[in-house]
Amino acid sequence: MKLILAIVQDKDSNRLSEEFIENNIRATKLSTTGGFLKEGNTTFIVGIESDRVSEALTLIETVCQAREQYMTSPISLDPTVDNYFSVPVPVQVGGATVFVLPVESFHQF
Amino acid sequence: MKLILAIVQDKDSNRLSEEFIENNIRATKLSTTGGFLKEGNTTFIVGIESDRVSEALTLIETVCQAREQYMTSPISLDPTVDNYFSVPVPVQVGGATVFVLPVESFHQF
Amino acid sequence: MKLILAIVQDKDSNRLSEEFIENNIRATKLSTTGGFLKEGNTTFIVGIESDRVSEALTLIETVCQAREQYMTSPISLDPTVDNYFSVPVPVQVGGATVFVLPVESFHQF
Repeated sequence: MKLILAIVQDKDSNRLSEEFIENNIRATKLSTTGGFLKEGNTTFIVGIESDRVSEALTLIETVCQAREQYMTSPISLDPTVDNYFSVPVPVQVGGATVFVLPVESFHQF
Repeated sequence: MKLILAIVQDKDSNRLSEEFIENNIRATKLSTTGGFLKEGNTTFIVGIESDRVSEALTLIETVCQAREQYMTSPISLDPTVDNYFSVPVPVQVGGATVFVLPVESFHQF
Repeated sequence: MKLILAIVQDKDSNRLSEEFIENNIRATKLSTTGGFLKEGNTTFIVGIESDRVSEALTLIETVCQAREQYMTSPISLDPTVDNYFSVPVPVQVGGATVFVLPVESFHQF
């Protein structure tokens, strides 16, 4: 048995929850803030058999991997003039920070 | 020193808090959701001396053990007719998922 | 890699966040309650290289160490008479409960 602590972006947390359920991995969600990733994030506590750790890690990586998204933001070329137009800028989203912890014993009551 | 992570149902969390206090076990509560148990649940972080782990586990089991409760819900025998009557149905409540983790060092400032 | 769980008083949590950022230590904050310290407290999850653990502990101790503060509370010498006056009383604030946990593997996606 291992304990996985996965800190992911809020925007990826619903999809990750669903993937966990679909793959029969039981996870508990904590609402957390800041630090490892900017702004609101979600921490998952996952208890998993040792031989399924890599499966869970692959799943987290697939859903949450850091990637670029293009955001359209208004940009002014000449700040003295009021002529804004939209330029798509690349923004990095996603990403996950994951700790795998040893478990001494596991109980279900 | 060990760290106990106990995920219990919200409805058992107050009683467990009280039992921890009464038995001089110091616990911190997190509000968590979903996964191990249905719906709202509470995660306790408990720091405890190695020789008191089984005492704490017994306490968690006593308070939170999964058990059946009878819930009275209206049930229609014939869905085409509007004749509901109440039948007590068994519902499982409680239960706890508990991890005991090794601690490398413990500090109090 | 180690995982530090630090439970501190709410009133110290902002300063600790800032110190972590300034010292390039990445931490995630959880809002927690009760137990180790009275009332609202904050739990930090900190992932840190093994050789920086003592640095992080020193930082937590510096910011959060238990200390006395004088609070001015109205006290009546004779409860039958309505003559309150203010006496500064020492109140203990701060303090931190810290667990250092072994990490089996660490991943960033």
